[in-house]
Parts: sequence; C-alpha cells; structure tokens
Amino acid sequence: MNEHGSSSQPDAQSVGTVHTGVTVPQGFSAAACTAGIKPSGKPDMSLIVNNGPLSTAAAMFTRNRVVASPVKWTRAHNDGSFKAVVINAGNANACNGAQGDADAKTTAKKTAEVLGLNADDIAVCSTGLIGDVLPMDKVLAGVENLAPQLSEETSAGNAAAQAIMTTDLVQKEAVYRGEGWSIGAMGKGVGMMSPSLATMLVFLTTDANIDDSAQLQEALGAATSTTFDCLDVDGSTSTNDTVVLMASGASGVTPDLEEFASAIHQVCLDLAMQLQADAEGVTKRVSITVTGAADDLQAKDAARVVGRDNLFKCAMFGSDPNWGRVLAAVGMAPVEMDPEKINVSFNGQPVCVDSTGAPGARSVDLSGADVAVEIDLSVGQGRATVWTTDLSYSYVEINSEYST
Amino acid sequence: MNEHGSSSQPDAQSVGTVHTGVTVPQGFSAAACTAGIKPSGKPDMSLIVNNGPLSTAAAMFTRNRVVASPVKWTRAHNDGSFKAVVINAGNANACNGAQGDADAKTTAKKTAEVLGLNADDIAVCSTGLIGDVLPMDKVLAGVENLAPQLSEETSAGNAAAQAIMTTDLVQKEAVYRGEGWSIGAMGKGVGMMSPSLATMLVFLTTDANIDDSAQLQEALGAATSTTFDCLDVDGSTSTNDTVVLMASGASGVTPDLEEFASAIHQVCLDLAMQLQADAEGVTKRVSITVTGAADDLQAKDAARVVGRDNLFKCAMFGSDPNWGRVLAAVGMAPVEMDPEKINVSFNGQPVCVDSTGAPGARSVDLSGADVAVEIDLSVGQGRATVWTTDLSYSYVEINSEYST
Repeated sequence: MNEHGSSSQPDAQSVGTVHTGVTVPQGFSAAACTAGIKPSGKPDMSLIVNNGPLSTAAAMFTRNRVVASPVKWTRAHNDGSFKAVVINAGNANACNGAQGDADAKTTAKKTAEVLGLNADDIAVCSTGLIGDVLPMDKVLAGVENLAPQLSEETSAGNAAAQAIMTTDLVQKEAVYRGEGWSIGAMGKGVGMMSPSLATMLVFLTTDANIDDSAQLQEALGAATSTTFDCLDVDGSTSTNDTVVLMASGASGVTPDLEEFASAIHQVCLDLAMQLQADAEGVTKRVSITVTGAADDLQAKDAARVVGRDNLFKCAMFGSDPNWGRVLAAVGMAPVEMDPEKINVSFNGQPVCVDSTGAPGARSVDLSGADVAVEIDLSVGQGRATVWTTDLSYSYVEINSEYST
Repeated sequence: MNEHGSSSQPDAQSVGTVHTGVTVPQGFSAAACTAGIKPSGKPDMSLIVNNGPLSTAAAMFTRNRVVASPVKWTRAHNDGSFKAVVINAGNANACNGAQGDADAKTTAKKTAEVLGLNADDIAVCSTGLIGDVLPMDKVLAGVENLAPQLSEETSAGNAAAQAIMTTDLVQKEAVYRGEGWSIGAMGKGVGMMSPSLATMLVFLTTDANIDDSAQLQEALGAATSTTFDCLDVDGSTSTNDTVVLMASGASGVTPDLEEFASAIHQVCLDLAMQLQADAEGVTKRVSITVTGAADDLQAKDAARVVGRDNLFKCAMFGSDPNWGRVLAAVGMAPVEMDPEKINVSFNGQPVCVDSTGAPGARSVDLSGADVAVEIDLSVGQGRATVWTTDLSYSYVEINSEYST
C-alpha cells in the first residue's frame, strides 16, 4: 500500500537529485548556502519553509539542562505553528550567554523579515562546536542569501540536508509516501549521541492535512521515544538536539491518524538507522534488545546501560563474544531482574542461560558489521531495543582531535 | 606524628622487599603461589591470615546485582570475624551458576582445613575473566601450596600483592604507621572500574586493638565512599569488587577512633591513586572536583557524570581544553544546578564563567599527565572529587582483545 523509500540507498551520496527529503511533500521549499561558518568552506546554512495552506508544527528538544541559545528560542516559541526553520552548522551557539540568546533571536528576526513572517514563526537550530560566539555578519548574510534560493524542487531539500552536516560522512534523508500524501525528512548527527534524542537535528515535513498541532506532537513524541531516544552512540547528550515536524496540508488529504503516526515512526526509524550507520568511528551496528523486563521502560533502561558500557563496546569492536561483560553491565541497570536467570544471545545463538555460560559461547562469530544482542531478564513482559555502536580507535581519534 | 608511606614510590616494582603491604602490621602472615590459573604462568593465588589475638573484620562489596560466587560466599559470611582471605587471579568465578557457588564454598572449606579454622572464617575473592568454571584441581592444590609458605615477613605481603594482579602493570600496596600500631594494604584493579568500589580487590590489615567490628565497618565504609567509590575509569562495575579489612590487635595499642578512621581513609586514598595511575590505557590522571552543589552527594554524582563522559575523556586524551564538553556532560547530571551560572576551570585557570567561555579558554595547556577540572554549580556548598582517566587508543586496544 505504501512505499517506504530511504536515502540510505547507494545513490544517496550522488550529487544529483534523490527523490527523498523535506521538499518531497507539497507545500515546502528549502535552500542551502555557504555562509562561511564552517572552516572547511562547505555549505553551512539551510532554510526550510512551510508554504501552507496549513502551518501546524510540533517539536522535541534535548533533555540536557545546559541548552544552546537556539534551543531556548525555539522551545519558548513552540506553540504548534512554526512556519520555517533556519539552521546553521559549524557552530552550536551554546554556552555563549546573553550574546548567544540575542544572536538566536536576531537570526529568527532576520529570517522572518526576509520571509515576510513574524519572528515567533521561526524555529532556529545550530550544530557544531560549543562555546564560540556565532559570526553574526556571516549568519545574517547567509539568511539573505538563502531566501531567493528557496525552491520546492527535491534537489533543494537534498542540498539543505547536506548543509547541516558536521562530521557526518553522508547526508541523511527519508521519505514516506502515503495515498496522495507524504512525509519528508532530513537529519544530522554522529556523536554526542544518546537518549534524549541523540545529538542531532531532525526536520520532518508533511503535506498531510492535519491542523491540530497536538496530533502532530503526539505522533512525534511517540515516534522519537522508540527511535532517536533509543539510539546511544557514546552516552553523551548534546545541548542542541532538536526535532521539528511541520505540516502544510497542501495535499488536501487527511490520513488516518494511526497510519500517520505509524508513518512518522517509520521515517524516524529510518533516519535513526542512518544516524547509527554513520556514527563516529562505527565499525559495528549493535542492537540490544531486552526482553522479560518488568515493563517496556525498564527494558529500555536496561538496554541503555549495556549500550553505553565501554567494556562491552570495546568487545564488540574486537568481535569478541565476551558475554560476561553483558552480564556485568546489565547487573548495574536500575531495573528489576532475576540475577540468576539472565539469558543472553548473540545473533540468535544462546551464549548465557540462567546467568551461566552456554556451550560454544566463546566461539560465536561476531565478525560481521551487525550484531544483535538479546537479553532476557526473566521477570516480566517488557521489551525494548536500543541501538548502539562499538568503541573503536576511530571514535577516540575523531573525538580527541583538538577543538580549535 | 605519623609516617605515611606508599609503594607508589619507584622502588615498588623492585623484586626485593618493600616496607609496605599487608604483613607490615603485627599478627598477619601472607603467602603467594603459582597455581596455574593464569595462562601466563605467573603467580595467581594469595593467602592472608590474621594470627590474632583478635579477629575483627569488616568488608564492602560491589553494588552490581550480578555478583560472582566468591562475593556471594564472602557477603553471606561477613559477620565481622574473618580470620583469613584466599584470593585467586585469572578467573573471576562469576556467572558459573551453582557450580561456581559450590567452588567458592569448596575453596573456603579447603582453606579452613589447612589453617585449622572454620569455613565461615574464610573470605574468598576471585578476579579475572567472567564465565569460565574455576579449575578446582589447581585451586585446591594452590591452597595446599600456600599454607606452608605463610610468613610474617614483609616480602610475603609483597608477593601476595603481586599474585593478585591481572592486567595491572604494577603491584599496589600501602602502609600507615601510627604510634605503635599500623595499617597495611594491597589492592588490584585496572578496568571495569567505576563507583561501587571500582573493579578491584583491596585487603587491609591492622594490628590496632579494635575488637568491635562495627567500628571497623564504619571506618571502612566512610573511607571507601570518598576514595574507591570516587574512582571511575570506564563507568563499568565489576561483579567481583571486594574490600576486606582485618584487625589482629597484635600491637596492643588502641588508637583514637578518629585517627584510626583518618588513617584508613589515607591508606584507601593512597591505593585509589595507585589504581588510577595504573588504569587501562591511561595517559592522563584527571580529577574532577564539583563545588557549589546542593550537597556533597550531588557533587559526587555530578562529578561522576562528567568523569564517565566519553567525549570529555577523548578530549582529555587529546589534551584539548574543550570545556563545552564539560558543560554538555554536567548538564545531564541528575542534580540541582543553575545552568546559566556554571563555572569551570582547568588546572586552576578559568575556562568558563557563568556558562560562557572565558578569555584564553581554548589555549590552556593540558599537555601534562595530570589535569584538574573544577566545576562550580553555583547552588550550594556541596563538594566532591571523582578521579578518572582519559579514553585512549590503548584502552580500546586492551579491551577489544579477544577474551579467549
């Protein structure tokens, strides 16, 4: 019934148009430019505009207490009616005090001015290094540059997805095609990625005819809780995480709410898997599924504790079926368990039964790029999956390079 | 008034006698042997015996819910009167089910038999790989081997300290000399080291005349909470952590309880610093002091969150004064803070004031082996220090090597 496309296909990296991204749904235009914020000279600003007729929106933000100035702005103006999002990469505008707050506001005002909107219609997002003041001359010139380039072409959305990349190696986009309506999305994020959305910016657009922002917020919240919120690269949580969903209503089609929610979930999951696959230093994509927990939330908490355990992650890097590290890690999870009845399997092969090693456990082949870990806590029916990566030399290399 | 010696001096590694360790206090004998448990063929079993006249004892254990069989045994028999500790390295006897429990008990019984004691007088400790059944023939032969070698010589304690090493590069011992009485100690631990004692075994002996085990337990609990419990190498917590303190009363001197508690703290701190300095892959010794917290416990929790943040640890490895990662990390701590008024200094130089970068912050020199991070949360008087290490290529290398 529906076609579920993804830019994680090989052609996602090509320069030409990929039929995915935020301008696939009707009623959205996008643009990208090189404002000069990234030292590399690559594109670093994007704009996504909802041309209506509706302007319904929803958003989710980082749970970090230390939040970047653009998050403060966007959170304060999140009343379900954002009409545009302006994004810069290369500078997080975080921990810049009152100057940072003023700069986020000035960016919103300038964007509103060039679009003929009000400042509180504008969501502002930034990603990059914490603690450097935004070069506002470049940002404001960038906003002026973006406006005349706005286009509903698919390629414009693709360009916007490219311009928000930081250490991302590939751009990340997704699409869902319903009957006469669609969802488009783009995202970025590679490290400082942990529950509480992962370090990432994600933008979803839809031409579905939904004028109740509470419905958007509910679908978005449900989708992020089982997708981005279950992605943990390094246990670190960013100051800038933001997900924005905008609906234009331009298709005139009002989808069944259940289908809509499921589609939003699919697109978020697609992007989450792209984020995992491009995580800093990743050599293994590891899924950790906890079953038999007291409830789904406890299952997620337990999976998280294992997913961020450095010894477990090093073992994964070494393709080492060292299941004892899984037991040691899950034993620290603040959830109900029967410590004598924990079962673990690697790629479907039991390695630990009733908290004791299974025959052949030390010779399970984990040399492939994907490892599925299942942990049964033997106390209930709760179940959840968390996706993580291994801890590799490259992760250390990328993250120990000097910040300036 | 007191002399506070430490085996972290250069001569600690020499083969000869070092005047530190568990046989410095009167009334204790020790022995070590090669039972053949370690594949390397190095010494792998130790025995420490309290020859009295008193046999007062205290112990602390891992907070992990998944605990090794020797921890189950020792915890169950921890009634303040252990007379001996038998230790093996090279095999954790963890996650071995009923067999593991039976093996720990058999080890205790055999040790009691050769010493003419009861099995419940014996603390049993193991360290090494999780999930392999103990080679009991070797363990029991080792126990028989140990008994006739027991000696009160200092060198016997030194040998015992050497035999409990796993990936430790140096043996770890400490001593405190009071007026006519003393404390001796030995420990091991390099990774899987996190609050909840760190992955480690620590044994303290004293000839102080203290016959109330509750007094020992109180002093030990207070000391571990601000030393081993503040050490976090990788956020992982072992199934085997154990600290045992035994008092022989052989000096006949009853020290002031406050001095005794302070001395126990000094010895624990000394060993904790040795553990930090020898942590797996360490290139930086990093102390994180949180001040201005609501209380000391919240300060410790906040320092811990920063101390286990991989991005922060990678920055330390790179000598990178990337203070934004400190802010991002501490913002996730579940403690009271004023997110707009956080101050950070590196080695005494302010890098962040009121959550905003300070002049010169990016050029602070962190090239030395020691980095002191101070974080002021600006809400109260709580204060605590957590010690951690950087996240280096070596850590990944050591911990990704195949377990079998």
